[in-house]
Amino acid sequence: MDELKKRILTDGRVLNSHVLKVDSFLNHQIDMGLMDRMGRAFFDHFKECGATKVLTVETSGIAVVCSLARYFHVPAVFARKTPSLTTVDDQYAAEIFSFTKQRAFTIMVNRRFLTPDDRVLLVDDFLAKGQALLGLINIVHQSGADPVGAGIVIEKAFQDGGSLVRDAGIEVYSLARIASFENGKVLFS
Amino acid sequence: MDELKKRILTDGRVLNSHVLKVDSFLNHQIDMGLMDRMGRAFFDHFKECGATKVLTVETSGIAVVCSLARYFHVPAVFARKTPSLTTVDDQYAAEIFSFTKQRAFTIMVNRRFLTPDDRVLLVDDFLAKGQALLGLINIVHQSGADPVGAGIVIEKAFQDGGSLVRDAGIEVYSLARIASFENGKVLFS
Repeated sequence: MDELKKRILTDGRVLNSHVLKVDSFLNHQIDMGLMDRMGRAFFDHFKECGATKVLTVETSGIAVVCSLARYFHVPAVFARKTPSLTTVDDQYAAEIFSFTKQRAFTIMVNRRFLTPDDRVLLVDDFLAKGQALLGLINIVHQSGADPVGAGIVIEKAFQDGGSLVRDAGIEVYSLARIASFENGKVLFS
Repeated sequence: MDELKKRILTDGRVLNSHVLKVDSFLNHQIDMGLMDRMGRAFFDHFKECGATKVLTVETSGIAVVCSLARYFHVPAVFARKTPSLTTVDDQYAAEIFSFTKQRAFTIMVNRRFLTPDDRVLLVDDFLAKGQALLGLINIVHQSGADPVGAGIVIEKAFQDGGSLVRDAGIEVYSLARIASFENGKVLFS
């Protein structure tokens, strides 16, 4: 998506060889015009997938999933993230490891919000090592629902998350795929 | 807002004399149609306030602030919440106590996203004891910006947060004000 790539180049800040900050328009301050156009781009790509739910994990995915839900006219669901595994009978849960925060989290979705009849489109702001997305896929499988694809705002194509998710048979559609950060500059795939 | 009140009566679950769960349409699964109509209701009320930013705190406020930002055509900002006070020079920070979680949090907003020229409309999903909202107001004051009002989805009018915020000179507009929970039923003000 050209508008997103341009925005990354103008407003993104490359902190080191792995970290891109996009907090001025994506995940701390949010440009809702851009967010809506991204929702539209995801819808244009996935509109035949028959999604009955769109699912993300808190926090940064919430604005994205809301924009997508508006186009699909289906409920948005976000998984809750807790610092430690708490067994709660009425929740689907999966453990994930955050490399950014260097700790494990449990992500949870209430059983009432995913059923075997659901077709679930996954979304997130970033895809790097794939832990969050694989955790969401795990939860969708537990519920008996079908994961019908994954929409990602920014994929770090130099990390293995995209391959792991695609190898699991899930289509991944990323609006911007980053090949590398070189000398503080973003190079797209 | 009649649609919201009806939805609370049909889909809300009163767990005890203080807790109302609205996770099927507001803060875990989200009904985006309702969310947009709530954004519109806030806009209709506050449209003359001259807001240049809309501000909330993660997590449950994010969907609300996004809907509002769409009507005002201004950036949405959400404060980040961390478990402990970490002094970071480039952030405005305030400490708040969560009665739901029985622990203190630090909420933070990057200094780049609030300036003395900003007029900031605050939003959140719930107002009970007012800790989150008072923390946000503290942060807005630190930045030199003006807090121009607070839009709340559900105010528990039997707790003192609404009075504390109004006594601080901030207009609070709540789409549903709950007087009490009696025998598992919601009574509106």
